[in-house]
Amino acid sequence: MGLTIGVDIGGTKIAAGVVDEEGSILETCKVPTPQATDELTEAIADAVRTVGADHHVEAVGIGAAGYVDEKRATVLFAPNIDWRHEPLKDKVEQRVGLPVVVENDANAAAWGEYRFGAGQGHSDVICITLGTGLGGGIIIGNKLRRGRFGVAAEFGHIRVVPDGLLCGCGSQGCWEQYASGRALLRYARQRAFATPENATVLLSLGDGTPEGIEGRHISQAARQGDPVAIDSFRELARWAGAGLADLASLFDPSAFIVGGGVSDEGELVLDPIRKSFRRWLVGNQYRPHAQVLAAQLGGKAGLVGAADLARQG
Amino acid sequence: MGLTIGVDIGGTKIAAGVVDEEGSILETCKVPTPQATDELTEAIADAVRTVGADHHVEAVGIGAAGYVDEKRATVLFAPNIDWRHEPLKDKVEQRVGLPVVVENDANAAAWGEYRFGAGQGHSDVICITLGTGLGGGIIIGNKLRRGRFGVAAEFGHIRVVPDGLLCGCGSQGCWEQYASGRALLRYARQRAFATPENATVLLSLGDGTPEGIEGRHISQAARQGDPVAIDSFRELARWAGAGLADLASLFDPSAFIVGGGVSDEGELVLDPIRKSFRRWLVGNQYRPHAQVLAAQLGGKAGLVGAADLARQG
Amino acid sequence: MGLTIGVDIGGTKIAAGVVDEEGSILETCKVPTPQATDELTEAIADAVRTVGADHHVEAVGIGAAGYVDEKRATVLFAPNIDWRHEPLKDKVEQRVGLPVVVENDANAAAWGEYRFGAGQGHSDVICITLGTGLGGGIIIGNKLRRGRFGVAAEFGHIRVVPDGLLCGCGSQGCWEQYASGRALLRYARQRAFATPENATVLLSLGDGTPEGIEGRHISQAARQGDPVAIDSFRELARWAGAGLADLASLFDPSAFIVGGGVSDEGELVLDPIRKSFRRWLVGNQYRPHAQVLAAQLGGKAGLVGAADLARQG
Amino acid sequence: MGLTIGVDIGGTKIAAGVVDEEGSILETCKVPTPQATDELTEAIADAVRTVGADHHVEAVGIGAAGYVDEKRATVLFAPNIDWRHEPLKDKVEQRVGLPVVVENDANAAAWGEYRFGAGQGHSDVICITLGTGLGGGIIIGNKLRRGRFGVAAEFGHIRVVPDGLLCGCGSQGCWEQYASGRALLRYARQRAFATPENATVLLSLGDGTPEGIEGRHISQAARQGDPVAIDSFRELARWAGAGLADLASLFDPSAFIVGGGVSDEGELVLDPIRKSFRRWLVGNQYRPHAQVLAAQLGGKAGLVGAADLARQG
Repeated sequence: MGLTIGVDIGGTKIAAGVVDEEGSILETCKVPTPQATDELTEAIADAVRTVGADHHVEAVGIGAAGYVDEKRATVLFAPNIDWRHEPLKDKVEQRVGLPVVVENDANAAAWGEYRFGAGQGHSDVICITLGTGLGGGIIIGNKLRRGRFGVAAEFGHIRVVPDGLLCGCGSQGCWEQYASGRALLRYARQRAFATPENATVLLSLGDGTPEGIEGRHISQAARQGDPVAIDSFRELARWAGAGLADLASLFDPSAFIVGGGVSDEGELVLDPIRKSFRRWLVGNQYRPHAQVLAAQLGGKAGLVGAADLARQG
Repeated sequence: MGLTIGVDIGGTKIAAGVVDEEGSILETCKVPTPQATDELTEAIADAVRTVGADHHVEAVGIGAAGYVDEKRATVLFAPNIDWRHEPLKDKVEQRVGLPVVVENDANAAAWGEYRFGAGQGHSDVICITLGTGLGGGIIIGNKLRRGRFGVAAEFGHIRVVPDGLLCGCGSQGCWEQYASGRALLRYARQRAFATPENATVLLSLGDGTPEGIEGRHISQAARQGDPVAIDSFRELARWAGAGLADLASLFDPSAFIVGGGVSDEGELVLDPIRKSFRRWLVGNQYRPHAQVLAAQLGGKAGLVGAADLARQG
Repeated sequence: MGLTIGVDIGGTKIAAGVVDEEGSILETCKVPTPQATDELTEAIADAVRTVGADHHVEAVGIGAAGYVDEKRATVLFAPNIDWRHEPLKDKVEQRVGLPVVVENDANAAAWGEYRFGAGQGHSDVICITLGTGLGGGIIIGNKLRRGRFGVAAEFGHIRVVPDGLLCGCGSQGCWEQYASGRALLRYARQRAFATPENATVLLSLGDGTPEGIEGRHISQAARQGDPVAIDSFRELARWAGAGLADLASLFDPSAFIVGGGVSDEGELVLDPIRKSFRRWLVGNQYRPHAQVLAAQLGGKAGLVGAADLARQG
Repeated sequence: MGLTIGVDIGGTKIAAGVVDEEGSILETCKVPTPQATDELTEAIADAVRTVGADHHVEAVGIGAAGYVDEKRATVLFAPNIDWRHEPLKDKVEQRVGLPVVVENDANAAAWGEYRFGAGQGHSDVICITLGTGLGGGIIIGNKLRRGRFGVAAEFGHIRVVPDGLLCGCGSQGCWEQYASGRALLRYARQRAFATPENATVLLSLGDGTPEGIEGRHISQAARQGDPVAIDSFRELARWAGAGLADLASLFDPSAFIVGGGVSDEGELVLDPIRKSFRRWLVGNQYRPHAQVLAAQLGGKAGLVGAADLARQG
C-alpha cells in the first residue's frame, strides 16, 4: 500500500496529513475542532478531502482521545468530546469513500515512535506520553497491543497512591495526577506558595503569584537554576521513573519511550526519570535494563502513527 | 508432538509428570528438593528419567521460581535457590537427552490454565497466583508473553503503596505484601492482636495467641463467622481487586484467573475480589468488563503448563 | 462573675446567647451573617446588644472559625470571611462597652463540652468536631490549650496520607479530607457511582444520581441497611478512629469527645470509630484507654463555651 | 531543694549523676545494664549510692524507656526490659532511702533541654529525639505534660503512612520508621544497593557492601559530598520536617528542639528539616512560625532532666 492519511483530533485543532511508507509527511492541513459532534465528523471528512486532493491515497487512520473498541471502529467514550458509542469509522468512510481505522491517540503516537522514531529496532516497546495527562501505548512482538476490548494501555489511571489525589476519571491516586504536565504545574505552584524565596526566577516569569506560573515558565526557570523549578521536575521524575519501574516488572520491554510536551525538555526531565527508574527497578542487578529514550517525532507521532496503522489494515 | 514431561520445582518437592496433548497427566513422581545446586540438577534429571521410563516422551518443560532468560535456557536469578545465571536447560539436556525448556513457574501455571483450565476460549488472559507471594502470567493474542528479556509478569512487585512495607526484593510497598497468603496471615494476626474479642474462633484454632494463627485457620474461622477472619479476607480482597483494576487499565484482558493457595477458598475470597475489582475499575461504565475466574487446575497448573510449553517448542 | 454572652459566627447565621454560670442559655437571638466585614462587626454588636438588653451581662465571648492570636483579640486569618489581622476584640468592645474575648470556634465548642457536656469530670480531654471539615480543641490540666501563638488544635490539617487529597489549606492528605462530613459525602457518591446496585436506597433518596446524594440521605439510607451508606460510615470511622489513636499517642487524654453534625448520628458512627480507635491504638494492651464519647451540647457547644471562656477572663 | 541525682537507664549502660539547681553535673558514674530485672534494680540503687556518697542529695529522678504511669512510680511497659507494671519507684526508694520519681526518658530529656538547654525562655516547647527510634516530650505553659495516664508524647508512633512499614509496636507506618537513626540507615543502604555508583564514598567507608554501612559512615560520607549519603539525610529531613509541621498544627509551640544522635550532625540535618517543616506548615503565611532548634545538652539531657524533675517533686 502506498500513501495514507493520518488524522490527529486535538482539543483545539484537527491535523491531517498525507504520509508515505517511510513515515514522511507529504502534505498537511489543520482546521479548528468544532464542539458539536456532527460538525466534528464533517470537519474530519473535510480535512481528509482537502489534504488528500492531490494524492492517491488508499486509507485513513484517525487518532482520538478515549476508548476505541477492538474493531477500531467505534469510540466507546471520549473524555473531551461528547462521543458515547460513536460509530466514527462508518461515518467517516461514508463521507470520504476510503477505508478508515480509528485508534486511541496515545496508541497511534506509540506506533509512530515504534515505526519511525525512537523505537525503531525494538520489538517490545512501551511508550508513555507526558502531556496534560499521561497516556501510552504497548508494542509487544512488533505489534500494537490494544487489549481484548481495545482499551488497554490506559497507563495514566493505574493507582499509585491509595486514597490519593482525585482524578477526573472518578478514581483516586491515578498515576497521571503525579506524572504529567498538570502535575508538574501543581508541584511548582505548591512549592512557590510555600517557599517563595526559592522561586524568585519562577515567580518573576509569571505575574509574581503562584497562580500566574505556567508550564513553560517551569522549564525556563529550571534552566536558570531556580530551585523550586528544578525540584518540581525532580518530583515529576520521581513518580514517572517509579511508574516505569512498575511497567518494567509487568512488560519487560527493551525500551521505554517518553514523549509528550513535558519530554520536550529533554535531559532536564529524562535524566532524573532514568535515575528514578533505576532506583525503583526491582531486581535491577539480575536483569537486563530497558533503555529510557526520548521520543523523536514530537507532536507528529500521532498523525504519522495513525496513518501507518491504516496502511497495515 | 505427543507426550512431554512437566517438572515443577517447589521449595520442598520436585514434581514431574508425563502429560499428553489434552493436558492429562499420565504418570507422576515426587522427590525432595535438595539444597545444593549440583544435587538439584541431578534430582531433576532423575525425576524426569523415572517418570518417563515407560513412555515415549519428546520434550521436557521445567517450571522454576525466578527470572528465566528470553531463550528459556538460563535461570538468571532464583529467590530461594542459589542459582545465578544457571544454564539449567543445557545441564538437564545433557543428562536426559531430550529437548528442555525452562520457564518461570507462574508463567507455566498461567499457560496451563489458559490451555486446559479456566482460560480456555480466551485469547487475552491475565493469571495471578496468590500463594505465599503473588506471581502471574500474561497471555495476549493466544501467546504467553515473557517480555523482551524473559522477565515480564512480575506482578507481585509493582508498587501499590509508596513508602510501604518492606519486600524481600529490596523494594517497598510491593503488591505481594498486601495481596498474598503471607499478607492474609499478617492481617489476621494484627487484628487478632488488636481486637482479640473479635477473633475468638480464630484464636481457638491455634494456640490462643496471634502468632499461633496459621493460614488454614483463617479460612476455617471465616466459614464459622469469625469477624477477624472475615475482615482479613476482605482486606486481602481490597488489595487484590484494586490491583486487578490496574491490570485491566494496562492489559484489558477478557478474563482474569485467580489461582494459588489463597484462591482454594473459592467464593470466600473471589466474591470480595470481584467487588473490589469493580469498585476500582476505571471507566467501568464505558467498557466491557473482564471476568474474574477461579483457577481450575489447582497445584497441577505449573506442571501441566510447563509440559505443554515444551510441546509448543 | 454572673451572666455572659456567647456569640457563634457561622457561615450563614450569627447566634448570640446569654449564658449563666451553669451553662444554661437564658435568651438567644440569630441574625444573618453579612458578607462585608464592616457590616459583620456591626451585626455582631447588634446581636450582643439585642440579646443582652434585659440582662446584667459582664462580658462577651465570640467564637469564630480561623486563627485567633494568643491574646484572644485578633483574628489572624479566617477561611470563609475576609479577615486578615482583624482586631475583632477592640472593634466589638468599642461598640458594646463590655470586655470581649475572641476564640476559635472549635476551641469554644471543646470548652463548652468540657465544662457542661460530655467532658465533665475529665481534666484532660480532646474534642474533635466532625462538621463540614474537622476541627478540635485541647483541654489539658483543666485548661484550654491554645498554643503559644493561639493557633493550636488544628486537627483537621495533620497529614494522614502523603501525596493525598488536595485540601483547601493548600496542603495534601489532611485528616479532614478523610474524616468529615464532606469526606462522608465523597465516600457515598464514589461508591454509588462505582456500584449503584449496592446503593439503591441511597440513590432513591436523592435524584437517582450520585451527585444528587446529600449528607442527610446517607444516615437515612444507612439506617435502612443500604450497603453503600453503611460502608461510607465505616470508611469515615476508619479514618476518624485511626486519627484518634494518633492523638492518644500524642496527648494521652482520658476522654475523646466527638461532636459536629456527623456525630449527630450517634452510635451509627461512634461505634465504628471506637472499633477503629482500638484497632490502631499503639500499646493498647499496656495502657489505660481513653473513652470515646458523643458530644452532648450539639450545635450550642460553641456559644456556651465562648460565653464561659469570657467569664473566666 | 539542693542537689538531686539523675539516672539514665540505657540499653548497655546506666548513668547516674549528681546535679545542682543550675543543671550542672557535679559527679557521675556508669555501670553496665544487667539483663535480669532484679539485678537491674540493684544496679540502679548501687549507682545512686555510689555517685551520691559524698553529696547531700535530696531526691532521685530515673529516666527509663517505656510507659510510666501518671504517678511517676510504675513502669507499665518497657520495650527493651522485661518490665510490666514494675513498681520501680517503691523498689528503689526502699533501697536508697530517698524520694524517687520515675519518668519516661524522652520526657526527661525534653525537660532537661527546656530547663537548661535550647528551650530556655520558651514556655511551650516540643522536643523530638532522633535516636535509634523517635521519642519526644511536651512542655506547655512551662510544665511537662505527661497525659492523663502518663503515656503522652509517644511521637514516634503516630501513623504517617497508612499501610506503611511494620513497626516494633505492632502497628504500621509509624513516624519513627521514617524519621530516626534506623530509618536513615535504611535509606542509605537501599540507595547504595540500587545505585552503588552514587555511593562510592559511603561504600568505601564500610566493607563495600550496603549491609556494611553504619550510621557514622553516612554523616562522614555526606560531608564528603557522597550523593547517596546526602540524599539519605534529605529523605530523613523530609519526614522529620513534615511531622514537625503536623505537631505545629496540633501544639503550636514557639520552639521545636531536635535532639538525639542524628541531630549531632547539626546543620547537615537541621537545615533540611527546617526547609521541610516550612514546606509543609499549614497556614504558614498567616501564623508565627516556631523555631527549629538543635538540642544543646547532647546525651546528658535525660540525666539532667530526670534530676531536675525529682527536684520539682
